[in-house]
Amino acid sequence: MTVAAPAPGGTPETGAAAASALDRLSELLADDLARVNQTIVERMDSPVAVIPQLAGYIVASGGKRLRPLLTLASARLSGYAGSRQVALATAVEFIHTATLLHDDVVDESAMRRGKPSANDIFGNKSSVLVGDFLFARAFRLMVEDGSLAVLDTLSNAAAVIAEGEVLQLSAAHDTETTEDTYLEVIHAKTAELFAAACEVGGLVAGRAEADVAALRSFGMNLGVAFQLVDDVLDYSALQARLGKSVGDDFRDGKMTLPVVLAFQAGSEDERAFWRRTMEEQEIAEGDLDHAIALLRRHAALDRSVAMARRYAADAQACLARFEDGPMRQALHDVVDFCVDRDY
Amino acid sequence: MTVAAPAPGGTPETGAAAASALDRLSELLADDLARVNQTIVERMDSPVAVIPQLAGYIVASGGKRLRPLLTLASARLSGYAGSRQVALATAVEFIHTATLLHDDVVDESAMRRGKPSANDIFGNKSSVLVGDFLFARAFRLMVEDGSLAVLDTLSNAAAVIAEGEVLQLSAAHDTETTEDTYLEVIHAKTAELFAAACEVGGLVAGRAEADVAALRSFGMNLGVAFQLVDDVLDYSALQARLGKSVGDDFRDGKMTLPVVLAFQAGSEDERAFWRRTMEEQEIAEGDLDHAIALLRRHAALDRSVAMARRYAADAQACLARFEDGPMRQALHDVVDFCVDRDY
Repeated sequence: MTVAAPAPGGTPETGAAAASALDRLSELLADDLARVNQTIVERMDSPVAVIPQLAGYIVASGGKRLRPLLTLASARLSGYAGSRQVALATAVEFIHTATLLHDDVVDESAMRRGKPSANDIFGNKSSVLVGDFLFARAFRLMVEDGSLAVLDTLSNAAAVIAEGEVLQLSAAHDTETTEDTYLEVIHAKTAELFAAACEVGGLVAGRAEADVAALRSFGMNLGVAFQLVDDVLDYSALQARLGKSVGDDFRDGKMTLPVVLAFQAGSEDERAFWRRTMEEQEIAEGDLDHAIALLRRHAALDRSVAMARRYAADAQACLARFEDGPMRQALHDVVDFCVDRDY
Repeated sequence: MTVAAPAPGGTPETGAAAASALDRLSELLADDLARVNQTIVERMDSPVAVIPQLAGYIVASGGKRLRPLLTLASARLSGYAGSRQVALATAVEFIHTATLLHDDVVDESAMRRGKPSANDIFGNKSSVLVGDFLFARAFRLMVEDGSLAVLDTLSNAAAVIAEGEVLQLSAAHDTETTEDTYLEVIHAKTAELFAAACEVGGLVAGRAEADVAALRSFGMNLGVAFQLVDDVLDYSALQARLGKSVGDDFRDGKMTLPVVLAFQAGSEDERAFWRRTMEEQEIAEGDLDHAIALLRRHAALDRSVAMARRYAADAQACLARFEDGPMRQALHDVVDFCVDRDY
């Protein structure tokens, strides 16, 4: 993150070094990851040509496979030597991809990951339906695996995610949104799937309930940290590297933490600005720059990153009960990567 | 159906008498149906207010509960005396409702069941997300039930439905669409859920494989007949009673069987008309009336209804292996109702 000087005790890694933490995790899990990628291609197939076309477009378009990697890593960290995690990590990625497809429709996003969004090319209609297809295929993979515990975890996650997305929609354009509501939204729409992805790794390994709960808590805290940083990056100049247009959330009227904090701390004039732009959606040339200036004036981005660091530390603490080694270290470092990434 | 004189050997029932076949089935299953309705309300609940509002709007807006009734009836016909069918019939209705919500977004339908469609009131965004929520809740209900066989049936149905919807989208505006492709679409998008709904009734009763297959086949044939008639009704003057605008499919460029048949049998001039309206979507005043005249000229509506009658007879034949009695008779009569309904 470049919005703040490194926090005392924070990682001294540069962006590039932090990025390599995710690469290291991917390398440790290279065989499993290759099988996930193969399973993705096999299981998104359909005689209806537009399905593999559209699904392939979004699955292949530069995703980091962070969520399926969490399932693979949690399974290995839990000492699991089998292969069930491959299909289940694929299911996790399909649920994530379906959410992205529906989210792009919902937000009318023009860009995702530096390329036109799928719904721009294929149309909203196809995005909704192919999302449904991937969601259903995710459940097929779980049913074939045959564990009701896994089905319970992931079907619950799917319901919570949808609930979180609707809550976010309800809170959009409402400048009175509280920090609590914001946290509720990101727990549901983002962290729940991180948590479920990790929990599944412990479940396939047959670990004790407390270990599974620790993995779930690891994922939940990591997911909250990840989304907090994502929301900060939406107002960051380096955002351009993400391939998203800067200020998407601003234009959508999404009440993310930086805006919640700046509104609460703002003068009456500033609040009038937020009401005009976020509530009434009257956005003029220069308003995004002014918004960023207000966020900086109230240290709203730094405070959001600081909160992300606290969640990240909580995530790392959850790893303590697992055997030390390269996998645990890689997961520890990936947490730092998620907070320190500037793209 | 009013497009043809009653077929020889066809039911002599009037529309009103036929309608009462569905009422009779509902009465036979009144207790179960009341519990389904209660479960629907309980399980669509959420602290996010727009979810029960929107879900309640569409679930309550005059739906006939045909699909959950098929699950309830199949379970009772199979001699099942327990209560598992209630939650599973609810899951079937949730999957159906989610499909409707996404279908309305997809088709930009302005009306459904005589009322403005949910997405007109709540917005496309909410419709997509609440559909996702209901879909996830359907899986929660199945997971709680705990039968992998049921999960297998319904998760497969969900994937097939999405595939069918995408296939329909791909075939839209293509006047070269064949009867085979049309049948593939309606098997997938409509009949598959009818089939799964019936199959689940046999599964909870623990019936032998051949009996479960017969219930599945009953539902599949009924579903095809149902959709064939639905597609005929879209060009029927009595359509107004359905509450849909007449000619929705025409305006959407949907290649339903009547148009497929009329195009194949049409002169070069007629084919040019279909290409202009269905492919190029250039629709002028009076074109719908001309389309209906062409459908009548080639007996395309009558031939579609005749095909529906053949599927209906196949459905009824599947009931033979089950014990005779009021439930079997009611299901037999509901098949006639689905073909003979004029609304």
